[in-house]
Amino acid sequence: MKDIQNTLVELQIEGGIATITLNSPQTLNALSEDMLTGLQNALDGIAVNRDVKAVILRGAGNHFCAGHNLKEMTARRADADKGSAYFNALFGTCSKMMMSIVDLPQPVIAEVKGIATAAGCQLVATCDLAIAAEDARFATSGVNIGLFCSTPMVALSRNVPRKKAMEMLLLGEFLPASKAEEMGLINRVVPAADLETASAAMAQIIVDKSPVAIKTGKKAFYEQCNMPLDAAYAYAGAVMAENMLARDATEGINAFIDKKPMPDWTGE
Amino acid sequence: MKDIQNTLVELQIEGGIATITLNSPQTLNALSEDMLTGLQNALDGIAVNRDVKAVILRGAGNHFCAGHNLKEMTARRADADKGSAYFNALFGTCSKMMMSIVDLPQPVIAEVKGIATAAGCQLVATCDLAIAAEDARFATSGVNIGLFCSTPMVALSRNVPRKKAMEMLLLGEFLPASKAEEMGLINRVVPAADLETASAAMAQIIVDKSPVAIKTGKKAFYEQCNMPLDAAYAYAGAVMAENMLARDATEGINAFIDKKPMPDWTGE
Amino acid sequence: MKDIQNTLVELQIEGGIATITLNSPQTLNALSEDMLTGLQNALDGIAVNRDVKAVILRGAGNHFCAGHNLKEMTARRADADKGSAYFNALFGTCSKMMMSIVDLPQPVIAEVKGIATAAGCQLVATCDLAIAAEDARFATSGVNIGLFCSTPMVALSRNVPRKKAMEMLLLGEFLPASKAEEMGLINRVVPAADLETASAAMAQIIVDKSPVAIKTGKKAFYEQCNMPLDAAYAYAGAVMAENMLARDATEGINAFIDKKPMPDWTGE
Repeated sequence: MKDIQNTLVELQIEGGIATITLNSPQTLNALSEDMLTGLQNALDGIAVNRDVKAVILRGAGNHFCAGHNLKEMTARRADADKGSAYFNALFGTCSKMMMSIVDLPQPVIAEVKGIATAAGCQLVATCDLAIAAEDARFATSGVNIGLFCSTPMVALSRNVPRKKAMEMLLLGEFLPASKAEEMGLINRVVPAADLETASAAMAQIIVDKSPVAIKTGKKAFYEQCNMPLDAAYAYAGAVMAENMLARDATEGINAFIDKKPMPDWTGE
Repeated sequence: MKDIQNTLVELQIEGGIATITLNSPQTLNALSEDMLTGLQNALDGIAVNRDVKAVILRGAGNHFCAGHNLKEMTARRADADKGSAYFNALFGTCSKMMMSIVDLPQPVIAEVKGIATAAGCQLVATCDLAIAAEDARFATSGVNIGLFCSTPMVALSRNVPRKKAMEMLLLGEFLPASKAEEMGLINRVVPAADLETASAAMAQIIVDKSPVAIKTGKKAFYEQCNMPLDAAYAYAGAVMAENMLARDATEGINAFIDKKPMPDWTGE
Repeated sequence: MKDIQNTLVELQIEGGIATITLNSPQTLNALSEDMLTGLQNALDGIAVNRDVKAVILRGAGNHFCAGHNLKEMTARRADADKGSAYFNALFGTCSKMMMSIVDLPQPVIAEVKGIATAAGCQLVATCDLAIAAEDARFATSGVNIGLFCSTPMVALSRNVPRKKAMEMLLLGEFLPASKAEEMGLINRVVPAADLETASAAMAQIIVDKSPVAIKTGKKAFYEQCNMPLDAAYAYAGAVMAENMLARDATEGINAFIDKKPMPDWTGE
């Protein structure tokens, strides 16, 4: 998979699990242009790779991700338009990457240690699932330096209650993992020493499911979210009827009725 | 009320409370075609019965409901279209029943013991209120047998934070009642021995309110949910002005101002 | 600021913080016509006052706010139309005031002690942030007197999980501050003796931020809330690129990169 890597984004695929590692510890894995490109390439490759059943997203070193690369952005203030076109393009690139996680057929688990701030916190909110070490800390801290976390807000506000989102966005304070779990930003908190084991175990649970069921369901989840109730049911009913006809569902349901072990899933 | 019963769905009406009992303990009260028909008939009868002020939905035996009847569904794989038309119709029938709970003038309380899985968990999510025994367990477990809980997801994702919903849907694991309460899927957890007393007490609180206020408010709740803020306020303001003109509101507000007991509500 | 006050609504502006006090302890700070007018005037004045960076909303006496003034409303049942036009206008006036809080450039913190019921509970839900004393109690209790809290529901249902909102609306019971915090209706609970200190500290955190970042972000938060994901990202990306060009962001980011103290924000 060498072609979809670069030095900043490591991709390892093993046993159905793709592990993406943001690898720039010295910048706290900041989402520089190259990091975004590497991440987009990794996601694009995974999207069409049927060997991948689940994805883990982590940071190298002691932290998850500290958001955008402010030095790189600041350098573009020297542009004729003071960076306007660049900033618009950069946030567009970043948003496209975030939406690629949502659109990815495979579930993505954020594995978080240390800090997850600004667009790094957005990454956590964007992933389908998230598991964090007890010492992980979360913030949408752009407001502290004059730059409100407006794009991180899009993902954050779709994950946590309104007043909790507002508190993070307006006050810019760090929240411990326990609070992040309470408000729904992450699924589970584990001791730091158990973090990789715990995210691998969660990914393995998904790997052991039928890929057609997982793919069908993840897509349908985000599709139906904003529909009115009757439209959501009409849509989801058709999705589920289609799922019933898949070979995996046929064999899985037969095994369940007959109290036999689940079949080897074919993903069809 | 014999005409709106069948052997699978028991309906008892007493003191303003309709108790619907899914009565097929041997199938864990699975939502077979006949069960769905019985439930739809019970709901249709209650909708036009002004003696009913609140509804309790429970399962006979040790469990609430285990979702669809997979044996019945599997039999239709022998159809010429492999069951496609049947499955579509079945999910449509089930969704119609779920929406009938939402559209019912009277609030519906799910009283949950044992397991509530797949469409059984959807029933809990769909009811206006839910109270569970400490030993109740909740899962959208279709993913374990190759059939993602796409229709249950519609109700689940409108009740709990996004990552919690995704965790239930993708991992298919059972959650204890305490976790279900924390995430908002149910309102209260009580010792198993107190379950019926607790749901009856909750229903009685509703029976003691003005039916016109309850009916008006329940309808308005679901109507305004997905409106933009200004449209929601325009709608809710008109609803509340209309409610002010009802005899119950007139007499209730007078009693409140005069520090007298509330009147006998007329429902007008 | 005498012109935007009346006897019922006190407005104090000091150190960038506007404190609005509902001042009618004998009516539990009911939202009478005059109270609504006073509150609307205070908000309209604050909206265009660049000296104000954050707003605290509190009640005089022992309580926050008990909702509408029922005596005043009942008197209008003597109108030729039994009060219909009046009630519609009143709820419209109240909804306009609530939306003015949402539209206000500055964040509004509800500081809650004693009871916050009906439209008083709606006020709490409507504010961007809320902090409450341990003895504060919350209810949408209109249902107890035949008048369902339909307009309070609009704000409540956008703040807390669906079943928790339904429980408050249908049962009309009081919730302690601890429960309100758990469900997301408020941000923090503090001992009663610390309430004013705590809300002042929260307001001060906001005062110390860049006003352009706060104003930009608050507006964008509510704008993007109900958009589909791709539209929300397109919108928020443009907002954030624009924010990058502000002087505050330029200087703030430079200071951050250079590890210097944040600049004096100019709000531009």
